Amino acid sequence: MPGSSFGELFRVATFGESHGTAVGGVVDGCPAGLALSEADMQRALDRRRPGQGLSATSRQESDTVEILSGVFEGRTTGTPIAFTVRNENQRSKDYESLRRVFRPGHADWGYQQKFGLRDHRGGGRSSGRETIGRVAAGAVADILLAEAGIAVLAAAVELGGLACREIDLAGALQRPYFAASDEAPARWDERVREARGQGDTLGGIVRIEARGVPAGLGEPVFGKLDAMFASALMGVGAVKGVEVGDGFAAARSTGRANNDPLLPGGRFASNHAGGILGGISSGQDIVLTAAVKPIPSIAVEQDTVDLDGKPARIKVGGRHDLCAIPRIVPVLRAMASLVLADALLLQRRLGRS
Amino acid sequence: MPGSSFGELFRVATFGESHGTAVGGVVDGCPAGLALSEADMQRALDRRRPGQGLSATSRQESDTVEILSGVFEGRTTGTPIAFTVRNENQRSKDYESLRRVFRPGHADWGYQQKFGLRDHRGGGRSSGRETIGRVAAGAVADILLAEAGIAVLAAAVELGGLACREIDLAGALQRPYFAASDEAPARWDERVREARGQGDTLGGIVRIEARGVPAGLGEPVFGKLDAMFASALMGVGAVKGVEVGDGFAAARSTGRANNDPLLPGGRFASNHAGGILGGISSGQDIVLTAAVKPIPSIAVEQDTVDLDGKPARIKVGGRHDLCAIPRIVPVLRAMASLVLADALLLQRRLGRS
Amino acid sequence: MPGSSFGELFRVATFGESHGTAVGGVVDGCPAGLALSEADMQRALDRRRPGQGLSATSRQESDTVEILSGVFEGRTTGTPIAFTVRNENQRSKDYESLRRVFRPGHADWGYQQKFGLRDHRGGGRSSGRETIGRVAAGAVADILLAEAGIAVLAAAVELGGLACREIDLAGALQRPYFAASDEAPARWDERVREARGQGDTLGGIVRIEARGVPAGLGEPVFGKLDAMFASALMGVGAVKGVEVGDGFAAARSTGRANNDPLLPGGRFASNHAGGILGGISSGQDIVLTAAVKPIPSIAVEQDTVDLDGKPARIKVGGRHDLCAIPRIVPVLRAMASLVLADALLLQRRLGRS
Amino acid sequence: MPGSSFGELFRVATFGESHGTAVGGVVDGCPAGLALSEADMQRALDRRRPGQGLSATSRQESDTVEILSGVFEGRTTGTPIAFTVRNENQRSKDYESLRRVFRPGHADWGYQQKFGLRDHRGGGRSSGRETIGRVAAGAVADILLAEAGIAVLAAAVELGGLACREIDLAGALQRPYFAASDEAPARWDERVREARGQGDTLGGIVRIEARGVPAGLGEPVFGKLDAMFASALMGVGAVKGVEVGDGFAAARSTGRANNDPLLPGGRFASNHAGGILGGISSGQDIVLTAAVKPIPSIAVEQDTVDLDGKPARIKVGGRHDLCAIPRIVPVLRAMASLVLADALLLQRRLGRS
Repeated sequence: MPGSSFGELFRVATFGESHGTAVGGVVDGCPAGLALSEADMQRALDRRRPGQGLSATSRQESDTVEILSGVFEGRTTGTPIAFTVRNENQRSKDYESLRRVFRPGHADWGYQQKFGLRDHRGGGRSSGRETIGRVAAGAVADILLAEAGIAVLAAAVELGGLACREIDLAGALQRPYFAASDEAPARWDERVREARGQGDTLGGIVRIEARGVPAGLGEPVFGKLDAMFASALMGVGAVKGVEVGDGFAAARSTGRANNDPLLPGGRFASNHAGGILGGISSGQDIVLTAAVKPIPSIAVEQDTVDLDGKPARIKVGGRHDLCAIPRIVPVLRAMASLVLADALLLQRRLGRS
Repeated sequence: MPGSSFGELFRVATFGESHGTAVGGVVDGCPAGLALSEADMQRALDRRRPGQGLSATSRQESDTVEILSGVFEGRTTGTPIAFTVRNENQRSKDYESLRRVFRPGHADWGYQQKFGLRDHRGGGRSSGRETIGRVAAGAVADILLAEAGIAVLAAAVELGGLACREIDLAGALQRPYFAASDEAPARWDERVREARGQGDTLGGIVRIEARGVPAGLGEPVFGKLDAMFASALMGVGAVKGVEVGDGFAAARSTGRANNDPLLPGGRFASNHAGGILGGISSGQDIVLTAAVKPIPSIAVEQDTVDLDGKPARIKVGGRHDLCAIPRIVPVLRAMASLVLADALLLQRRLGRS
Repeated sequence: MPGSSFGELFRVATFGESHGTAVGGVVDGCPAGLALSEADMQRALDRRRPGQGLSATSRQESDTVEILSGVFEGRTTGTPIAFTVRNENQRSKDYESLRRVFRPGHADWGYQQKFGLRDHRGGGRSSGRETIGRVAAGAVADILLAEAGIAVLAAAVELGGLACREIDLAGALQRPYFAASDEAPARWDERVREARGQGDTLGGIVRIEARGVPAGLGEPVFGKLDAMFASALMGVGAVKGVEVGDGFAAARSTGRANNDPLLPGGRFASNHAGGILGGISSGQDIVLTAAVKPIPSIAVEQDTVDLDGKPARIKVGGRHDLCAIPRIVPVLRAMASLVLADALLLQRRLGRS
Repeated sequence: MPGSSFGELFRVATFGESHGTAVGGVVDGCPAGLALSEADMQRALDRRRPGQGLSATSRQESDTVEILSGVFEGRTTGTPIAFTVRNENQRSKDYESLRRVFRPGHADWGYQQKFGLRDHRGGGRSSGRETIGRVAAGAVADILLAEAGIAVLAAAVELGGLACREIDLAGALQRPYFAASDEAPARWDERVREARGQGDTLGGIVRIEARGVPAGLGEPVFGKLDAMFASALMGVGAVKGVEVGDGFAAARSTGRANNDPLLPGGRFASNHAGGILGGISSGQDIVLTAAVKPIPSIAVEQDTVDLDGKPARIKVGGRHDLCAIPRIVPVLRAMASLVLADALLLQRRLGRS
């Protein structure tokens, strides 16, 4: 598989560049009979549009999704669900200066080395706009998951080094930055203003939880559920670290403290494991954490090289987010949904769910 | 793909349970003409046998590998390389008490929920012995990588919360615990003795580096090189967190500090990214970190439930490591090698390497 | 993989129903740097439009293709090439009578059993319009193949039981029915008129040849090149048989007659094998044959059942081809091109081409 | 997937060369809880051993299978089922003369071109012994299918151009050549004697039927059930043609004659389609036909070339079958079983079976 499709049985392929004709995707393998409309996808896409918090780009696109196939009289038919979002607000000339130089911290260099050429406009395929396909596909996954009683939540728990003082994922959609606490956004606004004044950018940390996940999802060895989540989250641009449950803190704990004793009724006395044991869901809440690096498009001049390998200086123009939070939150959430939808269908093959 | 094979073009499937007849694997897709012998696999397997440092099990097996196919007159033929290691030193009766109870922190519960039955002896398929297949396959990958000028190194950088005071991966194979520094093993010995006295177990952190990796490996979107590494490392039992480059520290950095300026000659002024940008190798060293949880087999009685869901108490017998370090180090290294071998062959399809 | 994508490294996913919004596809894994425009796809698509010979439907659509991604300044970028063709000339009401009955010989029954519901309009996903995605993707494959010196030809060699008296594939594009001989179309016209008079439909046989294929393509066991061709051709609706080289005639031959002696210079004294030995291309021309069943939409009343399982009578309206030939010829040719493009990239991984 | 594994969810990988240490395979994805023993595999393997009819090799091996993993207390555990058969009766020196020349009609030439080297002993990986892995895996598939009420039958219906005068698949296991009729073996014996006298070899035709297959198996577009069968059967060495239902005869039929009218109760008035419509099983019997070419190892001297490309003469020694029938019959049957097992698990994901 050459890199633009994800999942075994609930499979999504995405396509599209930042300044091409359209971005979109194809969901293949979705069971028939689910109620699905463009509005379901649109609602999810609207959450990844700019406008939540101070950290966002000024590029404004309506990002209106159109479903091309796979839905008939309001229900999925079991055939591929293709959808597109047209690219509208393209100021490609903003990027002309990037045709021959590589932006530090971006994918530019790698693409050039890999393919021998690249679409230099706005990140091309590595643009955040690629994630539109993921989010729309995630909306389909969510419908399947909801039928199975599974809900996936996500929130920003840290921005610019400032952690939320409490964690409430359920309310995140109503808060700026999709923050995990009411108190964080005000502090984060201040941090963002400070960074902007320095031409600098920020990173953050996102937490994802899945509730209602039945025990038994995930394959024992190479298809471990945690490995799938790790691949899904690390495969989102800007993510540099992934944890399951206690993550790196578990490495500093001891077996006595870290084990989760089993209780009658399929319950556990604690959830250090984050809901996954031996690669298989335990029936507890799934808990995932992703580290998001600072946006590399800073407003100060940087050292780089040009296509001929000669030293150059670059100051990135265009319209950029200052922090991937909050827009990355629905993307990471969508990836978790895609993993779960796939794991759910895979488990059904065993005839035990 | 139901979970026991890994990789697209350089593909390994493993098989075997702790107390079954044999463990082993099949490497499919290895190019023809590589010099390969059982001694190459054996050398790698010997590194994951007990005996390095105080933390290891007393189960002693020679773990002698036999190659069944795919090698002719000392060279790979391009056909599947199958190999097995017989299970010898099986004291299955040690495990009879585990037939009807679930060990906290182990895969027991998940397997039972997933499959409706399980081989309760020594972890069955979730045993560390499964990793024999990975390590032997990794030895094949290493030969392919060496031909391409790529070397993969790994070392323990932290154990029981005690971090190495310096990092030298090249010397790790000669040190107890495959430690990243000369000074760490003595401190770790003491920490291990302390934990043993408490019937407790420890975790740690492993660092993997790959040197000589050409720019351009990895696919842009869902086959990102970092996503593949994340899946590979998180897919090893006991791993709860994975970082690429600065990982979680990057989330607390800023764009100005975190960007790696490009220099002439395909070099960079720093390597916060850990050698991967936009999912594609940059030509810098690949840097990965994995968090390893404490061994769940502790020597104290724990709460659990039995097959009927009734409360039970369990004290795990058998012969267990006290810490997955050092034995997990060659396993994680092997997984990184498998990812790189696969990415290398995938890149060759583009006719640019 | 749930059924709408094809190929390992040169991979195509198609989507779309006959009477949905659009049909199309995504080509993933195409190497960067190939010259590609919508005109290349359009030329291929025009060949599968109605109008060649008497056997075609009266449904007329311009089938104008739009490329949405993966091409920049006239060259492929290595990223997914998505394309769509809008469905225009939809007379869905023609199909309203089919909502509750199953057409004999069609996919209707299977879809209903598989998914529990179906888009009954014009075959839905099983419509011949699905093949638009294959043909457009095949046009991309052809560019890759042409660079490697490979040409794929196809022609109808039999229609309604009347075989061509000579075989000339090179001229087929210029002939009605894409016939393999100049003399056949007149006889076939007569056969078609006769069948039409009886409300009946016809089948035929298509031959595909690939020239310039290097020796060494195909995998030895389960990825045999002939197995891939068989899957590709049998996977086109209406195909009921596939042969490689002498096919069924080989089963009635003897070893002395059927073996192809090798000659110096990588040549062979004959080509009974059809260019494939042991699943691997020999360097000779690839020769494939596909049997195409009669169109099941006949203009006479047939016995069937309705959604409740009750007996019903059906006379299929709509606008239908009388024979899948000629329109299936470019589809089968495209499938062969897709197989070869994939096999070519797979072989490159071995670093020997 | 580089060529030695087959199937999506019920997946088999095979390994081994004719004169290597062992042949075998790994079945991954088999559901847990099936009763399975080595005797089940052995019974299937015994059917592909020499001794049925006059056409067989004199190489006699016990072909004793050993299960290495995946079975616990007589039941499958859901983990990979690995098995091996040791190669015993190796007279490798018989093949020394083949080190530098290519046998016409064999895979020798292709392997050399593909890999740059080859194991020349007895066909190496392209040997019929590779099919041991398929047959043993097929025995596992059969247990799964039997639980679902599906039976797969196979018989030789033609040998050396002499067709059975009646078709009775159920009795084939009791007849020489696994013939489809009582009267055929005597005629075939004579035909075989005649060919042997001429140093020649023969081909034949095999028919496979699957009974009890529920409607709904197979994916609509690229994972069509007939495409999977075509790939599975054409992927067996020596097969040059595959038909579903009426096959090539359907191409010469008309729509009126070829359509199968539907009857109440999920029945059909005829089965020209061979149980598959639109790539999906209809609930009727699946009917498949495979054309098997003559064994290329003839006992007369042939023209060929050597490794340096110079003209050479070859007379193949060793111990060879004169016709792939009967030994290919259980192999083709096993491949059909593997396809059905996979399709059955794939369908279960939809939660409708």
